[in-house]
Amino acid sequence: MKKINIGIVGYGVVGSSVVKILDKDREIITQKSGLDINVKKVYTRNWNRKLFYPIDDSKKAKTVDEIINDKDIDIVVEVAGGIEFPYHLITQAIKNRKNIVTANKALLAEKGKDIFSLAQKYDVRIGFEAAVAGGIPIIKALREGLVANDISKIYGILNGTTNYILTSMYTEGKSFEQALKEAQEKGYAEADPTLDINGTDAAHKISILASLSFGGFVDFSQVYVEGIDKIDTLDIELGRELGYTLKLLAIAKSHGEEVEIRVNPTFLPSWHPLSKVDGVFNAVMVEGNNVGETMFYGRGAGGLPTASAVISDIVCIGKSIANNLGRDLEITSMDWKHKDLTLTKVKDFYTRYYVRFTVPDITGILAKIASVFAKYNISIAAVIQKEKILKLQKETKEKVVPLVILTHTASENNIQLAIKEIVSNKYSVENPVIIRVEDEE
Amino acid sequence: MKKINIGIVGYGVVGSSVVKILDKDREIITQKSGLDINVKKVYTRNWNRKLFYPIDDSKKAKTVDEIINDKDIDIVVEVAGGIEFPYHLITQAIKNRKNIVTANKALLAEKGKDIFSLAQKYDVRIGFEAAVAGGIPIIKALREGLVANDISKIYGILNGTTNYILTSMYTEGKSFEQALKEAQEKGYAEADPTLDINGTDAAHKISILASLSFGGFVDFSQVYVEGIDKIDTLDIELGRELGYTLKLLAIAKSHGEEVEIRVNPTFLPSWHPLSKVDGVFNAVMVEGNNVGETMFYGRGAGGLPTASAVISDIVCIGKSIANNLGRDLEITSMDWKHKDLTLTKVKDFYTRYYVRFTVPDITGILAKIASVFAKYNISIAAVIQKEKILKLQKETKEKVVPLVILTHTASENNIQLAIKEIVSNKYSVENPVIIRVEDEE
Repeated sequence: MKKINIGIVGYGVVGSSVVKILDKDREIITQKSGLDINVKKVYTRNWNRKLFYPIDDSKKAKTVDEIINDKDIDIVVEVAGGIEFPYHLITQAIKNRKNIVTANKALLAEKGKDIFSLAQKYDVRIGFEAAVAGGIPIIKALREGLVANDISKIYGILNGTTNYILTSMYTEGKSFEQALKEAQEKGYAEADPTLDINGTDAAHKISILASLSFGGFVDFSQVYVEGIDKIDTLDIELGRELGYTLKLLAIAKSHGEEVEIRVNPTFLPSWHPLSKVDGVFNAVMVEGNNVGETMFYGRGAGGLPTASAVISDIVCIGKSIANNLGRDLEITSMDWKHKDLTLTKVKDFYTRYYVRFTVPDITGILAKIASVFAKYNISIAAVIQKEKILKLQKETKEKVVPLVILTHTASENNIQLAIKEIVSNKYSVENPVIIRVEDEE
Repeated sequence: MKKINIGIVGYGVVGSSVVKILDKDREIITQKSGLDINVKKVYTRNWNRKLFYPIDDSKKAKTVDEIINDKDIDIVVEVAGGIEFPYHLITQAIKNRKNIVTANKALLAEKGKDIFSLAQKYDVRIGFEAAVAGGIPIIKALREGLVANDISKIYGILNGTTNYILTSMYTEGKSFEQALKEAQEKGYAEADPTLDINGTDAAHKISILASLSFGGFVDFSQVYVEGIDKIDTLDIELGRELGYTLKLLAIAKSHGEEVEIRVNPTFLPSWHPLSKVDGVFNAVMVEGNNVGETMFYGRGAGGLPTASAVISDIVCIGKSIANNLGRDLEITSMDWKHKDLTLTKVKDFYTRYYVRFTVPDITGILAKIASVFAKYNISIAAVIQKEKILKLQKETKEKVVPLVILTHTASENNIQLAIKEIVSNKYSVENPVIIRVEDEE
């Protein structure tokens, strides 16, 4: 049986879960894979802290170089996080002809082009199943299982923290701040949850999925990202009345020459499978021209689920190594069309919209707003006007009420122009809340 | 670029969809896989019928031998169906050192042990992604994506025909006969739907999934199978009142040394993700010790979805061939524990039950039935007794009404003993309806 030596950089929750599984489930992994996977060395910045899982002193590396320069190590597993440090380490390891397994979505989304080109040059493989949707084998499904499909759309719930928060706002009526606090107390949100809350984490993941689906690298700085920090419970309630559930969706759609990639809070019809994905679970829908609609669901984070994905990469790449192969077995590279993706500009988004205005409670205001929408060719699908008084307007002490308009499919550009006109005419006394709606017509 | 020659046996809906996709999506499949997949020959019993997709005369084989004896053919794709004919053809092809891709669940469930042993001997691979859940890449997920998991349970909706029928009984109140007729009219049920309706098709599929999950071959004749042909709309309605949806579930659970495999109509709580899988869609839940709960959802049948799975196997096995490898790359064989699975006997099933008795409308009958349940240590979780008169009893012309008992977890043996006693005491004037309930306590 072929022995595969791995070196692990990063010994936090994920790194220690990898070691733990390779210990406790050694027998079944060996039986299934025919490989003897040996953790040769592990590096972490500080060995003098409490470890999640014990490791023999002989395996503790004091420097990263001990791992990337070890001639016997076949695969370097990067589960340290961050960007600069792992970028340096991974590029060095590749130059030493190490295969790489990483859970680092930020790194791959922002520096993927460099890293994958280098891997090509040095004929090594990069496994990144753990970078997207934790334990769900979505990367393998896209690359191999659905290889015979022209993907038109891939979208899903890719961040467990924000889904936990939105679920608790929806089911328990909590405010964003309350829900975030609770998520932190339960360990579902980090002390600094910025990258989760503002949508960046989901955007990293959808950028990776978009590359595999559409065959080119993404300029991450051009991806449209909107988080959930400004979501008001009121909109969740009003959406529910219209038959919608609010989710932070990460979406990538092909429009022929262009690809639309965005992360934004999205109203989904309540019957939609993703609207039932609650709490910290993730789910990804893939639409292929032959397979139709498929969905992959599971735990998107956590030590053991993520380590499950890391080890599946180790096994698959280990099989290549055991047969003295480099990249020969790889199916579906990140740039299989050999052309960077051209992203659709925000003004060219074309979708349905939920717009909540805050309007003075006077006769005729709906007619005025509706006429501006008509002027910009925006067709109205539904309206909710509530008697409930939101508050008194600051200056005039007039009553103001929420007025919600659900549109048919419209262009983002026209929506923005219409809203600008409505606000400048003071038909809405505040900037309206705009939430995109993913619902076929 | 390596050319992979395939020969296809069977040119019905699936076979012609394989050829169609390899034609229309040739460019992307080549870009993703780096392989040139060439359909060298196709065999079907009768070329003088209307074909679903045209094929060049030069590729039409008149005998199967033209394919299995063709030295240039690398992979034989069997999409003919049946058991005896494909068994003969596949074993011959293996002896000629052809790799095999098949969509034939019946063959693999009933003759898998022979076929996989032969493949081992001749060092060829067998791809069967298309045999279970159509286009959903569940086989690859189990073998590779979830390789680092000890699977405790795998269950799901694996037959689209019966799910279409049950969905239409649930949502439209149709009778089984009406729903079946409609399914046949829409092409979702075959003219002879026996193997779908009686649960055999789902049982074939779950047996294959059980082998991969638990690492041994299954004696298919020992698998417990119950179909949906006796399902009454009344039970669907009463189940709904208790918060349950009826699905034909295929279930495989590990109990240490034994594996429980069964297909039966099952009440699932309405919140369960599988209870929302409607119409012809399939879905499989997998519970792994590290990944937790995952679900895979998509179209379980149809030409293009199934062909999508067939081609993913052709690509993966094609990569082996392109690198002059045999079975070297295979991860997770059907008998990775090198021991046949020991199946749990029916009397040792241990689950929750819905039992509908038909009882005379007289005082004290519930107490009598409850006392029999108590005698056999069966704890009652809920009761529905309806005033609605079902019918008059034949002989005595007494009124009879439905009495439903939902139990806590109980042994099948005790349930059967209790029911025997209840019926022999004429507390129930008809044999009760028994439906298993999959709901954690």
